[in-house]
Amino acid sequence: MQLKIQPIDIKVGKYKVVLNTIDAKEMGVHEGDRVIIKNHTVLKAIVDFTEDMISPGMVGLYHEVHEKLQKEWTDTVEVEPAEKPKSARIIRKVMDGKKLERDEIYELVRDIVQENLDDIEIAAFLTATYIRDLSEDETEWLTKAMIETGERIEFSTSPIMDKHSIGGVPGNKITLLIVPIVAANGLLIPKTSSRAITGAGGTADLMEVLAPVEFNAQQIKEMTEKIGGVIVWGGSTNIAPADDKLIRIEYPLSIDPHCQLLASIMAKKGAVGAQKVVIDIPTGAGTKIPDIKAGRKLARDLINLGERLGMDVDCALTYGASPVGRTIGPALEVIEALKVLETMEGPSSLIEKSAVIAGMLLEMGGVAAKGKGRELAIGTLKNGKALEKMKEIIEIQGGNPDITHKDIPVGKFTADLTAPANGYILEFYNKRIVHIARLAGAPNDKGSGVKIHKKRGEAVEAGQSVLTIYADKEEKLKEAIKSAREHLPIVVEGMLLEKVADVTEI
Amino acid sequence: MQLKIQPIDIKVGKYKVVLNTIDAKEMGVHEGDRVIIKNHTVLKAIVDFTEDMISPGMVGLYHEVHEKLQKEWTDTVEVEPAEKPKSARIIRKVMDGKKLERDEIYELVRDIVQENLDDIEIAAFLTATYIRDLSEDETEWLTKAMIETGERIEFSTSPIMDKHSIGGVPGNKITLLIVPIVAANGLLIPKTSSRAITGAGGTADLMEVLAPVEFNAQQIKEMTEKIGGVIVWGGSTNIAPADDKLIRIEYPLSIDPHCQLLASIMAKKGAVGAQKVVIDIPTGAGTKIPDIKAGRKLARDLINLGERLGMDVDCALTYGASPVGRTIGPALEVIEALKVLETMEGPSSLIEKSAVIAGMLLEMGGVAAKGKGRELAIGTLKNGKALEKMKEIIEIQGGNPDITHKDIPVGKFTADLTAPANGYILEFYNKRIVHIARLAGAPNDKGSGVKIHKKRGEAVEAGQSVLTIYADKEEKLKEAIKSAREHLPIVVEGMLLEKVADVTEI
Repeated sequence: MQLKIQPIDIKVGKYKVVLNTIDAKEMGVHEGDRVIIKNHTVLKAIVDFTEDMISPGMVGLYHEVHEKLQKEWTDTVEVEPAEKPKSARIIRKVMDGKKLERDEIYELVRDIVQENLDDIEIAAFLTATYIRDLSEDETEWLTKAMIETGERIEFSTSPIMDKHSIGGVPGNKITLLIVPIVAANGLLIPKTSSRAITGAGGTADLMEVLAPVEFNAQQIKEMTEKIGGVIVWGGSTNIAPADDKLIRIEYPLSIDPHCQLLASIMAKKGAVGAQKVVIDIPTGAGTKIPDIKAGRKLARDLINLGERLGMDVDCALTYGASPVGRTIGPALEVIEALKVLETMEGPSSLIEKSAVIAGMLLEMGGVAAKGKGRELAIGTLKNGKALEKMKEIIEIQGGNPDITHKDIPVGKFTADLTAPANGYILEFYNKRIVHIARLAGAPNDKGSGVKIHKKRGEAVEAGQSVLTIYADKEEKLKEAIKSAREHLPIVVEGMLLEKVADVTEI
Repeated sequence: MQLKIQPIDIKVGKYKVVLNTIDAKEMGVHEGDRVIIKNHTVLKAIVDFTEDMISPGMVGLYHEVHEKLQKEWTDTVEVEPAEKPKSARIIRKVMDGKKLERDEIYELVRDIVQENLDDIEIAAFLTATYIRDLSEDETEWLTKAMIETGERIEFSTSPIMDKHSIGGVPGNKITLLIVPIVAANGLLIPKTSSRAITGAGGTADLMEVLAPVEFNAQQIKEMTEKIGGVIVWGGSTNIAPADDKLIRIEYPLSIDPHCQLLASIMAKKGAVGAQKVVIDIPTGAGTKIPDIKAGRKLARDLINLGERLGMDVDCALTYGASPVGRTIGPALEVIEALKVLETMEGPSSLIEKSAVIAGMLLEMGGVAAKGKGRELAIGTLKNGKALEKMKEIIEIQGGNPDITHKDIPVGKFTADLTAPANGYILEFYNKRIVHIARLAGAPNDKGSGVKIHKKRGEAVEAGQSVLTIYADKEEKLKEAIKSAREHLPIVVEGMLLEKVADVTEI
């Protein structure tokens, strides 16, 4: 059918067109079907319906389709019904519990990357893998397909080190210590990190306080080869792009299918050329992996998948029921980490965890003897070499290397949560703390967050501050206080904290 | 956050707004999250993202949201992050294989009807029920919730009869005979039908050749009370609206979860007040239920669900591997059915199937003795009472009651598929025949379709026409011929038909 073009200047992230129902009926196509748009090139697009927005005889072209056709200067196009992509049938196979072939997984991942699938088709795929999981073979192919459909970094030297922390623990700023420790010992660690989705600050959000974090794959490679390590945002590269597209649908469904979790982590590591990887699996109440048995299974599956991909993977099951260190939110966390690098002063939970994981990497990388990694890591912190390396990393990424932890501004609006009586901290709800930090503005407002003065098991006196909320904006501080009042994040010896101090401007 | 309104005149069938990523970050919301729009009223909407379409400080309001707010004449609105609807968590429970409570199912169905769920959330729900199915209790609640969230017809007399055919058999025009037979015997049968989605003509598409089919619930009730029966399109009522919204997502996923199939059928019957129902379950190669065992299970499940809803359900397992009668496509099928009513001449497969199912209804309705229903049905056809009733139905729906089968125009472009040699028809592929009829223009072009001259097992001579393709438009006939050449719908004694006659204008 010849149809007149009507551009719709909306980006939908897909090749999508809108047909009037009358024309659609005439063509025998329904919503979600595909049509071919024939002109000089041939383009396949997903069909949307309208009864009034687009008149009969017209075809509404969303931004992506219009952009592709615009080069051809044309007024009308030939639109014809087309077959659905093979991937639609492949997704149905997953639903039916049938095993997929290698080629089918590659086909599916290519269609995801090339935006040939509608969101509801991807939602069905994710739901099916959440319920049925994929086999080890399928997960391996999925990971490889994710790696191969994106940019890859290939280093000419080895070993290439990497680390990853499964999310869910507030204040987990260890990457800011681990990368400089590892790089200071002569190993290469091209660390790509994420921004927070549900948290109060991903490593990329944190590092951004110190330096730009958006680089492409080539820049990451060059910087890493030059100084040994970087801490950048993975989202600005085209590394494992299928993963980002899957996460876009996983997030609103609040699911993280096991096989996708494995593939997501390992594809990103594989794509940057990592050969030796430590994965930090925080377990305990309030984390993504509340149960230690599930943590062990995840570790085994990651190690196994690593082997299939030719990567050496070690896992660390870590305590995740309490925040790491005592700060949550970008600026506050960076201050805490920098202070450790500068002075070795800081919470032992932060120093210990960083040293142990850095130590594992140092041993895997062959620069520390078996059992001596932690010691070397602590030494690298103490002798100032980690700080020196961190300054190099900040500088090469375009930040100010002379910055110290005292130079970093925090939110100027603060409020204290005080203890109503003498006692001990019995409960500390990670999720509520994170929620308060987010309401206060984290991670978008860099100075916003929460500083914890007392942690589980510690003694507290009546009137003493248990935590301080920081916010860049007064309005947001109020929201955070309101939430803290409604859902108390702390329990002191069975007594609920009820007092929240007024807003103080400092 | 106070944002300036920017209307987007696109209907998305949901309450949906578009935020600039900068504002969304500031608010801490992501794609698929919900926001509350505060003005005089409070409205909850789903969040979409843009980097350029909507400027920071603005909120793009899709048609549905804008329409709702427009009455308030305002330039800016307060937009705040909001919780996801409870239904999102309920869907997650289904994914996790946990049983739902009655209230949860009602909540979910209400949210579906009120468009509070995003398409990907509904896709996840359908995928999860496809894989896990729902229990009998859950399916009962689902059906009841579907009935109660829409319009209902309540008759003051009883019994109210109804029938339903599971789709998948081409040419299944039996409703055009059954409804007049049943109504001619004094029973009430308010038959709502569907239009074809993947077929060449649903009963509503067929009836539309004779009379209008779009009526509301009140009109259906009044017409049925007046003359005993109607044959209308269910889609123009607000009967079980949740079902239509689910089908909108099931179609592109090509799934029809068992529990949804049951609920879909029974909700529509329950909502029109049906008390005694016969369900036609075609089985055999190429139907929706290829396996007779699956057909029996479906029958048991339908009877069981009927009992739970207080409905008396009988099922007929019918032969579905061949078309019913010899015509496919709206006008051709109506001609075949009308001819039976007028003259009792027609294919025995059509007359027999209609008489048996009508007979079951006559027995259930107490107007025929046990075992005498078919006989009464045949008698009602023979004595002209069914034809008389059909004329009344056509007239009350606004059609011309004096129409005869000879008055109905068919497609003026035709092509014959001829046998290349003497032999017997060995195979007849339903799906290919339907595909050819659709390419020829059915169901949208009423005169388009396929007339079958020879069916499975029948003898055919070389050069004899096996089927004729009809089309209202020459272009479409060519498409249909092309497809028939590529995917032959018929096999004659192991020999493939290769010749297709040229286009003939009659």
